Amino acid sequence: MEYPSKLVENAVNEISRLPGIGKKTALRLVLHLLKEDENTTYALTESLNDLRSKTRYCRECQNISDADLCQVCQSHRRDRSIICVVEDTRDVLAIENTAQYQGLYHVLGGVISPIEGVGPAELNIEQLLRRIKEPGAQVKEIIFALSPTMEGDTTAFYLTKKLSEFNLEISTIARGIPIGGELEYADEITLGRSILSRTTYHRD
Amino acid sequence: MEYPSKLVENAVNEISRLPGIGKKTALRLVLHLLKEDENTTYALTESLNDLRSKTRYCRECQNISDADLCQVCQSHRRDRSIICVVEDTRDVLAIENTAQYQGLYHVLGGVISPIEGVGPAELNIEQLLRRIKEPGAQVKEIIFALSPTMEGDTTAFYLTKKLSEFNLEISTIARGIPIGGELEYADEITLGRSILSRTTYHRD
Repeated sequence: MEYPSKLVENAVNEISRLPGIGKKTALRLVLHLLKEDENTTYALTESLNDLRSKTRYCRECQNISDADLCQVCQSHRRDRSIICVVEDTRDVLAIENTAQYQGLYHVLGGVISPIEGVGPAELNIEQLLRRIKEPGAQVKEIIFALSPTMEGDTTAFYLTKKLSEFNLEISTIARGIPIGGELEYADEITLGRSILSRTTYHRD
Repeated sequence: MEYPSKLVENAVNEISRLPGIGKKTALRLVLHLLKEDENTTYALTESLNDLRSKTRYCRECQNISDADLCQVCQSHRRDRSIICVVEDTRDVLAIENTAQYQGLYHVLGGVISPIEGVGPAELNIEQLLRRIKEPGAQVKEIIFALSPTMEGDTTAFYLTKKLSEFNLEISTIARGIPIGGELEYADEITLGRSILSRTTYHRD
């Protein structure tokens, strides 16, 4: 497409590098910013520059944080014997929203993906091992809350081997039919797993 | 949602002000920028700041332009007797891509929309009238290429009245069944209009 100005072209090119945003959407955003007050643009760009230059990561769990330690790691109410291993910040937010988990987290910052060139060294795995080993550590259980994809499973497998030298209980979140999901619409693998991992009712 | 840091929260809030982008998508973009090299973010914000502070508009057609006159208005190959009136730059790009139009454009910068508080004064209507009136002007025909919505029709109606004092041919782009469209899936209004505005085959 031939854009009416170099400035528009540059902005469209930069915006359309973002995941899930194509050239058409980028042009729509550019025209929106040109119509709005200029402070809308400046507030946006300032917040992004601040984000990139000032964001820090929690010394313990590697989650994004304003301080040296994130709020979860700082809290005295959390159970320090359990660490839930997740891929990124969004997973922490999702699990926190359930209000069902009182332990700590560890953010890997990705999953092992040979296709995208992400190996174990790119992830925060050493930091996890350090947390388990450090003097005074109370870690007894590790829960994997990784996506049920090839990459997620590979990462869980790799971590399980790495963690085998410690005396830890290792678990993964349950796979099965979602609450409210209809059996007939479930895929075969999920349905099969949900039968294999069935939950026994306890008799009174 | 409780974000892990103020910086993330600010960035998510600013990004989700853009049309069509919600908080979830904004958070995905934020995490993407945090993963990428920091220059990705700075190139993006610089292009947006430049866009907003340096973009100029063509003195004649009001389209976005790098120079005082846009490339279409500068060209000696364009037919200066026809002006195609459009809502914004995207429409100019779309019509230029057809390579079927050799006249000039006039970008209104919007359409009349009482609900969104856009009146005739907010649009580049005075500039259009000035182009028609100015000494040496050769304008003979005005084509409306506005969206077939309530707002587009209102704008066309308003402009037709304003232009009635000049001796101009006024037309609007054809409404009808799209090429490749199936009759049975066309809505009733479009199909009805396509019968009313039928094209007569010329006998040899």
